[in-house]
Amino acid sequence: MKIGVLGTGTVGRTLAARLSELGHEVMIGTRDPAKSRARTTPDAYGNLPLGRWLESQPRLKLGSFAEAAGHGDPVVNATQGSASLEALEKAGTTRLDGKVLIDVSNPLDFSRGMPPTLFVKDSDSLAEQIQRDFPKTRVVKTLNTLTAALMVDPWRLDQAEHSVFLSGNDAGAKQAVRELLASFGWKDIIDLGDISTARGPEMLLGAWLRLYSALDTPLFNVKVVR
Amino acid sequence: MKIGVLGTGTVGRTLAARLSELGHEVMIGTRDPAKSRARTTPDAYGNLPLGRWLESQPRLKLGSFAEAAGHGDPVVNATQGSASLEALEKAGTTRLDGKVLIDVSNPLDFSRGMPPTLFVKDSDSLAEQIQRDFPKTRVVKTLNTLTAALMVDPWRLDQAEHSVFLSGNDAGAKQAVRELLASFGWKDIIDLGDISTARGPEMLLGAWLRLYSALDTPLFNVKVVR
Repeated sequence: MKIGVLGTGTVGRTLAARLSELGHEVMIGTRDPAKSRARTTPDAYGNLPLGRWLESQPRLKLGSFAEAAGHGDPVVNATQGSASLEALEKAGTTRLDGKVLIDVSNPLDFSRGMPPTLFVKDSDSLAEQIQRDFPKTRVVKTLNTLTAALMVDPWRLDQAEHSVFLSGNDAGAKQAVRELLASFGWKDIIDLGDISTARGPEMLLGAWLRLYSALDTPLFNVKVVR
Repeated sequence: MKIGVLGTGTVGRTLAARLSELGHEVMIGTRDPAKSRARTTPDAYGNLPLGRWLESQPRLKLGSFAEAAGHGDPVVNATQGSASLEALEKAGTTRLDGKVLIDVSNPLDFSRGMPPTLFVKDSDSLAEQIQRDFPKTRVVKTLNTLTAALMVDPWRLDQAEHSVFLSGNDAGAKQAVRELLASFGWKDIIDLGDISTARGPEMLLGAWLRLYSALDTPLFNVKVVR
């Protein structure tokens, strides 16, 4: 498949690399490709400069948000939550119309200190904001409850005996995302319902952040035991 | 031990019955014991009238919030979240001073329709509100992420291979609660840290409510796989 991945941080890179490894034609999108490629210092999270990292991923293409959105279906939103709506606007409504948008972002607000809070929650969610702004796009929320390394390789923990969630209004879109998740190795994929159910996994971040601190590793996930 | 359980709903009854079965001297507290005992119709959740139910629990005592708080250490807050601060005020600051208060409540707001939202979250929690109002009480948040039947009998699911959380400022209080949880059968008890970490498990309700709907049963829990 042709897949666009918006965002060049850890999550975008990890998803793009794995999708590429699985044989998909992936274009990774960023605000200003020339500027991003020219950067020579690590980003705020210590990631390799993008140009250097791309050398290790010769099959990946780099483009603008608009080019990556135009290239792929599905398109993955792996931008920072606080920048997601703006990035998707740059990607362009018409380029996203009718497409599956896999939203893995979180509405994290770092302005009030650590751990971050959520800038939308409980009676609304970032996934719903995106769906409202892009009504013809088939938004599916998933994977936002995990560190990037586990998103694409659930077998790193307990033979993949743990859970991931799906929320979205379009059954066909959810089925397509389910198949993509299965190709990553996911076994327990729980369909929570329509896009409003994304409030649940987004609010799960409140627990995730405290577990990250208590366990001193991001390599954990929840298994829904029933 | 002498234990006070505030609240006579499903959660309060379930905890009181189990604690009594384990040999503790339990007093269950309600706003108006005479009125509660005189009731002859099921409550809003279909529970037996309290008097009828108490006939099946001859070792349980019934008292006011103040009497139950005076009777026990620990005291369990199993009142509805929206009524917890008022119930604890009726229990009385001096009766709660120095005691372990096990807070199993959730800040659920049913006024905006179903599923309920949370009336405090993210940058504060009900557990912190309680701790602020009762600064000499040793508040421990736990068990709020589960349906009552699982709180007291984790072995109903997967040989108790799932997780429960602790949040609180007092290490001794958390140790006491840990032992009580172990006596219920809990094996994976995760100390998240101080009382502010209760924001995590309280926000987990957002996911719990959607899972309850998607799985069509409250008999589930999360296992933190790491």
